[in-house]
Amino acid sequence: MSDKMQQIVLASRPTGAPTADNFRLEESQIPTAGPGEIVVEVHYMSLDPYMRGRMDDAKSYAAPVPLDGKMEGGAVGRVIESRNDKYAVGDHVMGAFGWATHATSDGEGLARVDPDQVPLSYTLGVMGMPGFTGWFGLMEHGRPKEGETLVVAAATGPVGSMVGQLAKSMGLRVVGIAGGADKCSLAVDHFGFDACVDHRAFDSASDLRRALKEECPDGIDIYFENVGGKVLEAVLPMMNAFGRIPICGMIAWYNEGGLGASAQEQTLTGPRLWRTILVNFLSVNGFIISNHWDRMGEFHATVGPMLADGRIKTLEDVTEGLENAPEAFINLLEGGNNGKAVVKLV
Amino acid sequence: MSDKMQQIVLASRPTGAPTADNFRLEESQIPTAGPGEIVVEVHYMSLDPYMRGRMDDAKSYAAPVPLDGKMEGGAVGRVIESRNDKYAVGDHVMGAFGWATHATSDGEGLARVDPDQVPLSYTLGVMGMPGFTGWFGLMEHGRPKEGETLVVAAATGPVGSMVGQLAKSMGLRVVGIAGGADKCSLAVDHFGFDACVDHRAFDSASDLRRALKEECPDGIDIYFENVGGKVLEAVLPMMNAFGRIPICGMIAWYNEGGLGASAQEQTLTGPRLWRTILVNFLSVNGFIISNHWDRMGEFHATVGPMLADGRIKTLEDVTEGLENAPEAFINLLEGGNNGKAVVKLV
Repeated sequence: MSDKMQQIVLASRPTGAPTADNFRLEESQIPTAGPGEIVVEVHYMSLDPYMRGRMDDAKSYAAPVPLDGKMEGGAVGRVIESRNDKYAVGDHVMGAFGWATHATSDGEGLARVDPDQVPLSYTLGVMGMPGFTGWFGLMEHGRPKEGETLVVAAATGPVGSMVGQLAKSMGLRVVGIAGGADKCSLAVDHFGFDACVDHRAFDSASDLRRALKEECPDGIDIYFENVGGKVLEAVLPMMNAFGRIPICGMIAWYNEGGLGASAQEQTLTGPRLWRTILVNFLSVNGFIISNHWDRMGEFHATVGPMLADGRIKTLEDVTEGLENAPEAFINLLEGGNNGKAVVKLV
Repeated sequence: MSDKMQQIVLASRPTGAPTADNFRLEESQIPTAGPGEIVVEVHYMSLDPYMRGRMDDAKSYAAPVPLDGKMEGGAVGRVIESRNDKYAVGDHVMGAFGWATHATSDGEGLARVDPDQVPLSYTLGVMGMPGFTGWFGLMEHGRPKEGETLVVAAATGPVGSMVGQLAKSMGLRVVGIAGGADKCSLAVDHFGFDACVDHRAFDSASDLRRALKEECPDGIDIYFENVGGKVLEAVLPMMNAFGRIPICGMIAWYNEGGLGASAQEQTLTGPRLWRTILVNFLSVNGFIISNHWDRMGEFHATVGPMLADGRIKTLEDVTEGLENAPEAFINLLEGGNNGKAVVKLV
């Protein structure tokens, strides 16, 4: 067994979409555990759109990754050395181990996981942060009611598919938006959405809106916002009175730091957004799931059984090898993945 | 006693700020009551910023005033003829009687008021729609907590002064924004705000923000939004995590239908607004008080005693004569009023 480990660091900050040369693979010795520490061998690491934000040097809810610093992210693995009373060699743990094959930890902020209960990689997706984000945002800020209409983009992603399936189970009409005919088929056939609109088939927000209107004859009561951009532009005038918009992301704008002068921005002005919120009595709530770990138990108790008996389905897009993580991440930001993007390291 | 009445109709739709020739005074016979109807002699009518929106032919929460139609608005007066079992001659009632000296009503949507309990004009201000708007928005969507900081613009207006005084009574730091040094003195000396910033003293949103920062050393937890424009631009980057923004109006944008290409709009883009909501976990809620009449009893029970014992103060800007209503309304939109704008007709 090699005593080498690998990690990927932020070599330079992207301007616009990240490219391969923004990342650098580094090799070093596998660390040993200091007092109170453990060493984890990472089995799966997560790729998520929010990581794009961390690559910018902009104020956000989390500090940016420093230049030459390890790319951040959630991962799950096995304890291979322990000087911590809470964790023994062979335990499986999930934590913010970053883009690396190995990591040390003092045990703070880790969650123990049981690979006999749920496949390890699921703790990064359907039963982890993205699934939890979908469940929390829908229940807390979406406040779904039977008979209402919900729209969610990135419908086959781990957040969107959770939101759509949960809403469907509660008797809502669920319309997904996804990029490409294949993803739309997945949303309907695999995840059970009532309909799915392919945003790539429409150049303009108004064309996309026309297609959405056919699938949402009664307007939209909940728009679960995870993309921004053209989709938001299309959806906004369709919101019903007293509609709810939970916001957990805006991937369409990430490559511009949320501030670029995109075609969307020309038309989606602050005053118009604000006025729509006022005249339709909308409730708009931004959130990040890391503020709500206290609800994780409730999430597991609710969604765990639904996953076990097939009411909630999942889909993973697995890339093998840390060296392929940057390419997989770039692909994710372009919407090239099908399902939750993870990188398998062991 | 004359048998003539007067009303003011919408002669033409304004482009930008309304002017006198958008209004026309008309004279007619005082109507008589049909079966089930009453005739009301109006004593006070209300002037409110929302009326500007009704002058545009744009989709909103209420239909626009038709051309040559009577300007809409709340008013209070005395029943002078009745063929309705619920109301007798001499009763005082509040209702949507519009800009007119007299009106008929079938009694639907009226509220009986007692001039011995509270001055008639107060039912249009501190104890009426504006006061209720401030109370409801603050309590329901602002969710004030002791020690937090609240900012409200139009601080000496009937909504802003209610919001500020209530928040102050609950132990918040309350910073007003108003147009002119006189209004700022009123906010602090008469209404008891901790501080008030004169937005007219600052040309740019960033200069206004610098002044606000001095008064809000701990950032802003609640921004009660009733103006939009430069104030929103200044406030937005100062919002604390988990901040709340109830939206009941955006007077700064009314003259552009909320959609114009103002200087604010150049910088206050949709993506930036959206991103601020996300990264600060804000809760943004649009509302109009007419959806919440069921809470009126609670409002009266809470605020009535505070008004009676002086914990809540009020201020009125009274114009005499219906013919002077357009000028007073134009003045209101320019911020020329001091306190709740009403027109005294009798």
